[in-house]
Amino acid sequence: MRIVSAIQPSGRLHLGNYFGALQKYIKVQEEGQALFFIADLHALTTVRNGQQLQEMTYGLALDYLAFGLDPKKTILFRQSDVLEHTELAWYLATVAPMGLLERAHSYKDKVIRGLFPSVGLFAYPILMAADILLYRADRVPVGKDQMQHLEIARDLANKFNTAYVLGYDASDPEGTKEGNAPGILTLPSPFFMKDESIVPGTDGAKMSKSYNNVIEIFADEAIITKKIMSIKTDSSSVIEPKDMRVSPIFALLQLLVTPSEMADIEESCRIGGKGYSTYKHRLLECFYETFRTVRQRRKELEGEKGYVKNVLNQGAERARQYASSTMEDIRKAVGTARK
Amino acid sequence: MRIVSAIQPSGRLHLGNYFGALQKYIKVQEEGQALFFIADLHALTTVRNGQQLQEMTYGLALDYLAFGLDPKKTILFRQSDVLEHTELAWYLATVAPMGLLERAHSYKDKVIRGLFPSVGLFAYPILMAADILLYRADRVPVGKDQMQHLEIARDLANKFNTAYVLGYDASDPEGTKEGNAPGILTLPSPFFMKDESIVPGTDGAKMSKSYNNVIEIFADEAIITKKIMSIKTDSSSVIEPKDMRVSPIFALLQLLVTPSEMADIEESCRIGGKGYSTYKHRLLECFYETFRTVRQRRKELEGEKGYVKNVLNQGAERARQYASSTMEDIRKAVGTARK
Repeated sequence: MRIVSAIQPSGRLHLGNYFGALQKYIKVQEEGQALFFIADLHALTTVRNGQQLQEMTYGLALDYLAFGLDPKKTILFRQSDVLEHTELAWYLATVAPMGLLERAHSYKDKVIRGLFPSVGLFAYPILMAADILLYRADRVPVGKDQMQHLEIARDLANKFNTAYVLGYDASDPEGTKEGNAPGILTLPSPFFMKDESIVPGTDGAKMSKSYNNVIEIFADEAIITKKIMSIKTDSSSVIEPKDMRVSPIFALLQLLVTPSEMADIEESCRIGGKGYSTYKHRLLECFYETFRTVRQRRKELEGEKGYVKNVLNQGAERARQYASSTMEDIRKAVGTARK
Repeated sequence: MRIVSAIQPSGRLHLGNYFGALQKYIKVQEEGQALFFIADLHALTTVRNGQQLQEMTYGLALDYLAFGLDPKKTILFRQSDVLEHTELAWYLATVAPMGLLERAHSYKDKVIRGLFPSVGLFAYPILMAADILLYRADRVPVGKDQMQHLEIARDLANKFNTAYVLGYDASDPEGTKEGNAPGILTLPSPFFMKDESIVPGTDGAKMSKSYNNVIEIFADEAIITKKIMSIKTDSSSVIEPKDMRVSPIFALLQLLVTPSEMADIEESCRIGGKGYSTYKHRLLECFYETFRTVRQRRKELEGEKGYVKNVLNQGAERARQYASSTMEDIRKAVGTARK
């Protein structure tokens, strides 16, 4: 099984990213051949600062390696290093009806949120389709909000196969029925990530860079202490029972403590007698219990100059092997083959 | 001076292509470093037959070589062989406002003419801009109908430079004023092709594959004879004077004979006494006087297996050197540099 996933380098890693995606992506490497890339070409639709993008890209690679992504198993690379992504995007663009993109939610949503309505933003789902189809991925881990992108990728694969593969039957994409040709492009299936718990930020809203409520995993200790100590509470006194829905401390604790400790916490809230600061201190302890090792490992990796660079370069080299094999078949079909 | 031009492989070369573009493009190779490519990626917006596209691409390369394009001087290559074309197109797409493309004529015109309204057709001017900007072309030979595309290329170069070059002043793109930075992308100037005479087809309308009125330069002799003999005339008898506006024979003769012979032809039309078939036979003779050598040379080249392939491969190699130098600067600016 081949699995492709990606993340945009658009900020420093926080608890929401970790529990929402990274933790699950890293587990995926045990399920088959995983290709994991840092989507810097996509980030160009929103980031207009070269130095920042470069740092975030390398930083994200460091994050993943610190968290145990194994570059021997998973192919970790940078999207912009594999030119075949944009190459395939063009081939797909020639079979993509304008109406398909005009119906995509994400462009409209982003423009409403104030993003610059560029052709890149509009054509974004085509590049995403290329990202997936280039590696003939069987499975793509998706959250609910990305389902439409995966559907567009499947749709474009079918349109390409129908346009160029003689005898291709879109109702039988693998060509298993007698007389049918298998498609050049593989139709990827979604790989739903269970447990899509929303991680709350320090103010109780969804943790997100744009809400300025994040707890960054690799921030300095002073900042982490400050952030955790500033988590929203109400004015209940120490002796009063605590309503666990009032403060995001408890939802955050739940992500970090064992179920039996969580049961104790629930009990203590019910009977009262402990102040919010007690819970905050416990959260702080748990944060370090969970992340001390990876924080340490990331520091060490930062010191190993050239290591991340090498991992990304070798990853790109391996990714290019898959990519050029797909492109060879595509070029043969459309008439741009290197004879 | 660096000059970039291209032609789409979308049919077999005819007199209209030759006098309209090819003849002039070949002259351009004496004016500076010319890069000339066969735009097969653009052709994908209209051609959906791989074998046909492949043959037309190689055929067009043969045509140019037969006509004396010198691969030692001019860099002749195939667009699809240089992945940086689509790569740069993506970078430009991220700075291209949707409105810019929505205002482009060619998309609307093509859709009205019945072409499939694909994202590729819509984004066509961005790939064209990349084609030019990738090589930092100073000059681009353009006909009147391509001026808007060149303007879009200039506009995108300016937008990119403004977005990413610190101190870049769009009113001074070369950074000649003190304190101004030169742009990463060079703003290309048009190189107007003089003498935009419209070559008439056998029915008198503009010679065009879509009107089925073309005289192909490399067709078999029997076909050429048939085509020339079928050129539209009126029913004037041999002895009557001939109105030179009635039949396209005369406009075609004008392209092929010397001015003094043309004066004789005009005189004979005025006084009459010669039938249309006399003029048609002269046109046939002139056709072979003009094209015998290139027809012969093309036949020889067809026999030299691998020659065209080598020319195109070496051309792509040289083109890639220019392209990757531009892309290196772009990547550095936007944050995707290979450190």
